[in-house]
Amino acid sequence: MARVRFQVPQRFADLDLLGHVNNVAYLVYVQEIRLKLLSRLLGDRLSRMNHVVVRNEIDYLRELSLGGEPLEVDAWVERIGTSSYTIACEILDPVGEVAARSKTVLVRLGDDGTTEPLTDEERDLLAVAADGSGA
Amino acid sequence: MARVRFQVPQRFADLDLLGHVNNVAYLVYVQEIRLKLLSRLLGDRLSRMNHVVVRNEIDYLRELSLGGEPLEVDAWVERIGTSSYTIACEILDPVGEVAARSKTVLVRLGDDGTTEPLTDEERDLLAVAADGSGA
Amino acid sequence: MARVRFQVPQRFADLDLLGHVNNVAYLVYVQEIRLKLLSRLLGDRLSRMNHVVVRNEIDYLRELSLGGEPLEVDAWVERIGTSSYTIACEILDPVGEVAARSKTVLVRLGDDGTTEPLTDEERDLLAVAADGSGA
Amino acid sequence: MARVRFQVPQRFADLDLLGHVNNVAYLVYVQEIRLKLLSRLLGDRLSRMNHVVVRNEIDYLRELSLGGEPLEVDAWVERIGTSSYTIACEILDPVGEVAARSKTVLVRLGDDGTTEPLTDEERDLLAVAADGSGA
Repeated sequence: MARVRFQVPQRFADLDLLGHVNNVAYLVYVQEIRLKLLSRLLGDRLSRMNHVVVRNEIDYLRELSLGGEPLEVDAWVERIGTSSYTIACEILDPVGEVAARSKTVLVRLGDDGTTEPLTDEERDLLAVAADGSGA
Repeated sequence: MARVRFQVPQRFADLDLLGHVNNVAYLVYVQEIRLKLLSRLLGDRLSRMNHVVVRNEIDYLRELSLGGEPLEVDAWVERIGTSSYTIACEILDPVGEVAARSKTVLVRLGDDGTTEPLTDEERDLLAVAADGSGA
Repeated sequence: MARVRFQVPQRFADLDLLGHVNNVAYLVYVQEIRLKLLSRLLGDRLSRMNHVVVRNEIDYLRELSLGGEPLEVDAWVERIGTSSYTIACEILDPVGEVAARSKTVLVRLGDDGTTEPLTDEERDLLAVAADGSGA
Repeated sequence: MARVRFQVPQRFADLDLLGHVNNVAYLVYVQEIRLKLLSRLLGDRLSRMNHVVVRNEIDYLRELSLGGEPLEVDAWVERIGTSSYTIACEILDPVGEVAARSKTVLVRLGDDGTTEPLTDEERDLLAVAADGSGA
């Protein structure tokens, strides 16, 4: 499956007083996409897992305004480590150019709140959306 | 002046359904602090400048919940380049431990929307909050 | 045309720590719908008009959680006065029951920021979505 | 005690692209104030209570922009019914004029999710912030 294409509907409230999508709103889009990707990959397991975000990075390449149509976003699992993994997104503008690239690192926490290795099942499920070059 | 200490009041809406401050809300805090820092450094010039965020990165080290008191945040100008600069923040938890570290890169845009070198005046003003090790 | 049916995609961030859609998020939905309705009725005129919200009221009838599908919302122009008008919404839950009813009153402002009568053209355009019983 | 005066710090994100505080952000302020008022009145009991918002209404009297200082807000318990009560707020602008008036109706839910009468203790605690004219 590798890359998965998602749609993200925008909201008026995503704009700031400069009239473009505020830099923080891009991270809201990234969060929506990550949850949709993980829901697709992990299904019901998602609600029982304790995977927390430990790092976000995002490069803003193009301004976004409010289009009538949802934004297109590509997402994939870029890296699967021992107890952490990285989800990458590319947010596209209405003409198909990359408007932003993000990476989000998540770690698996055990019941006591400390880092635990991903299970083999989790690794297999995440690998379905792993990019050919990275997994 | 180097590092500047700010207070960031939290809101109930910063919490997500897991009961802790959502990872995106940290970026809202970072945005508030950046605007306060730039307002202090640049004064009235801020509203006439077209400085846009081209990169955000943030490492989450500790969970935050909703305390009664505002969060303490340190912010400083970590790097001043030709046409871009980097603002760093450390968000502290209620006992004074670093809960998150962020870096935000901004570039100066000219009237035509393309990158322009920072003016000498801007560089001098930003340098007031430059960390001793980096500027 | 009378009532218009819209879809409102939800977001994870609409949930609060109690696990249901926060009461403020309903107003975000109402705002999205109002802008879509007005955009459909008024077209390009919308961006040149200075119509501001002077009252919101909303009754919450049922809890909403995060469904996979967008929410269905009915919206219509309930009242057209001299210089103000009222837009009503019914937000439906996934089984089609009304989860919330809202009314938003807007007034038309002139260039000097004071209330001005709606133009005949504006009244005609708004009347297209007027409910049979109210306009 | 009657009316209680609170401060609400604003955020850049409260502004919309028209450069003033968005109408939904006023409800965020109202929510913050309500939780602070109830926390002061009810203390630890607040987290064990299941009081949900069943109605919001707000009249917008004046535009708000982003001031350097927190907004001043007065809040009080306007009505205490059998199983519901009403909290009223007045949000003041920087020169002390009322910028918005809101009323929020909450009901007490029992363990089964249906409406239950307020306990005598709850009524006594809420009455501390009851306005002389209404309770």
